[in-house]
Amino acid sequence: MSTSTAFDPQAYRNALGTFTTGVTIITTRSKDGSPVGITANSFNSVSLSPPLVLWSLAKTSYSLESFTNNQHWNVHILSAEQEALSSRFASRGEDKFAGIELDDGINNTPLLPSCTARLQCRTAFCYDGGDHLIFIGEVLAYDRSDLPPLVFQSGQYALAARKPREGVRLTNEPTQDSAYTEDLLGYLAGRAHYQLLYKVTQAMGPSALDELSFFLFSLLSIRERATLEELNSFLLHTGMRATEPLMEGLENKGLVAIELGETCAIYALTGQGRESALHQIALAKAVDQEISDRIGPGDAMALKLLLKRVIACSDPGLPDLWSTGSPSSR
Amino acid sequence: MSTSTAFDPQAYRNALGTFTTGVTIITTRSKDGSPVGITANSFNSVSLSPPLVLWSLAKTSYSLESFTNNQHWNVHILSAEQEALSSRFASRGEDKFAGIELDDGINNTPLLPSCTARLQCRTAFCYDGGDHLIFIGEVLAYDRSDLPPLVFQSGQYALAARKPREGVRLTNEPTQDSAYTEDLLGYLAGRAHYQLLYKVTQAMGPSALDELSFFLFSLLSIRERATLEELNSFLLHTGMRATEPLMEGLENKGLVAIELGETCAIYALTGQGRESALHQIALAKAVDQEISDRIGPGDAMALKLLLKRVIACSDPGLPDLWSTGSPSSR
Repeated sequence: MSTSTAFDPQAYRNALGTFTTGVTIITTRSKDGSPVGITANSFNSVSLSPPLVLWSLAKTSYSLESFTNNQHWNVHILSAEQEALSSRFASRGEDKFAGIELDDGINNTPLLPSCTARLQCRTAFCYDGGDHLIFIGEVLAYDRSDLPPLVFQSGQYALAARKPREGVRLTNEPTQDSAYTEDLLGYLAGRAHYQLLYKVTQAMGPSALDELSFFLFSLLSIRERATLEELNSFLLHTGMRATEPLMEGLENKGLVAIELGETCAIYALTGQGRESALHQIALAKAVDQEISDRIGPGDAMALKLLLKRVIACSDPGLPDLWSTGSPSSR
Repeated sequence: MSTSTAFDPQAYRNALGTFTTGVTIITTRSKDGSPVGITANSFNSVSLSPPLVLWSLAKTSYSLESFTNNQHWNVHILSAEQEALSSRFASRGEDKFAGIELDDGINNTPLLPSCTARLQCRTAFCYDGGDHLIFIGEVLAYDRSDLPPLVFQSGQYALAARKPREGVRLTNEPTQDSAYTEDLLGYLAGRAHYQLLYKVTQAMGPSALDELSFFLFSLLSIRERATLEELNSFLLHTGMRATEPLMEGLENKGLVAIELGETCAIYALTGQGRESALHQIALAKAVDQEISDRIGPGDAMALKLLLKRVIACSDPGLPDLWSTGSPSSR
């Protein structure tokens, strides 16, 4: 650790920012009746009996007068999907409430929809806190949803990856530092991949394809028409290659039609192939949903976010699978 | 959302608990000079000029007297590795500080090591907050490390999966709900797996093995000796199967030795095979480290945690790869 005796404001803020928080929007109504709201992560619970919560507001805030005038205000614990709303209420926009269908809170205070939890409060105390005022509110009513909450850490939005109380270990054996361990990302990604694929192929039963055929079939259900070269451009990272005999195997199963193009064959799904693809997508989505239910929807969102970040930073230059242009045009 | 007008204490706590926090331990010294410390997640920043922070303490707490007597106390923002320390200081243990080598803070207050950040404070105000007292402290000194912070949400410890400001998308095309999308966990896990494996095999150059041989070779470097049946028990979820000709291929490369057991062949790595395995592990660890550096060590920990949870809940019944017992004894 490096000790700072002189307080560089940015360095001090960075140190404080390592304390993780949720994100809230706090709303009230101004004297003229217009809705007022600001984003705050200084929220916390104080007391259970009576139920008190607190947050702090800069003394220079444009909203200060509204919050000191109106004893009634609402705390919205934002959900993971409300990142854009958080940013909107964090800036000095003209009409932060534009397009939002408000619910009506106690004393006609504005309540935002689609939050993780909402607390309707009345100021109990207002304390001095340096360049901020600390509002302590009694919670008069609250409600909550099952939406996973938005997280903020070190100046970035985030999602929480929760640890089950009982812990998660795949082996009970101590592992040596010099050896393969279950903590290698490569091992974990591979095992997760194969176990998820296994669930889909098990569900498909006798019509299940081998892994490479499964990939080729999936690629064609996204790309619609492709040459062997195009298909292989998407397979570069797998070390596998599509070949003519393999495509003929899919043709023999009635899944793929082969057209003769000017210079090479073009492959496309048949009607039966498209039907089979829809079935396969439905099964993959069912597995997705099952895992999300098991680990929790917020954790599933966090996992997808992290996998996308790993894919983005380990991409060997694969073409955009969903791009409508030809891969070679990239 | 379901509105609760009667405040069931547990339901109210659950709603409040959706607000994510970091975890802190706050320490001071009692009148008799012994160190005092408690776990708190009610911490937050209040003011930048002057630098003020707050936290609240139950009026019934055994530590109340120490914190009202001693104006000096330290806030420790705990790191992801300090979960056990958090639990220790959250309970009423006899000697919470046993075995901890303390640093010496201002006015001889105890400072815990290996935290994400530490703030040395002096009480500026102490306010009433229902069943709690709110301590407002001026920050006199602080330090921080690069250790990723511990997170707490809905009664569980957690890690943060951060969203880069620029967002993460693998495609610029809008995707249809009915089709394959980049948001399918199966797609993301597969692509991450193959891209990570590709990085390792690229680094291995001409000595790179095909995927199945790579797996068999990795299995033997963990299990040391195994029959074909045992090797295949670990491959169930991959849809791939080890065969005698494949093992002979590894023998021809000088990596594997084949012993004739009583009923069937037993495979083990040769000296050259073990050397090659160490090289391969080193490359896999280098890829692991590179990804961790790119996405951040806390995010990498979160990803591994989530992958383990997915593996645990989609496990088709694979034997413990690291167990010293035979797979068949499970």
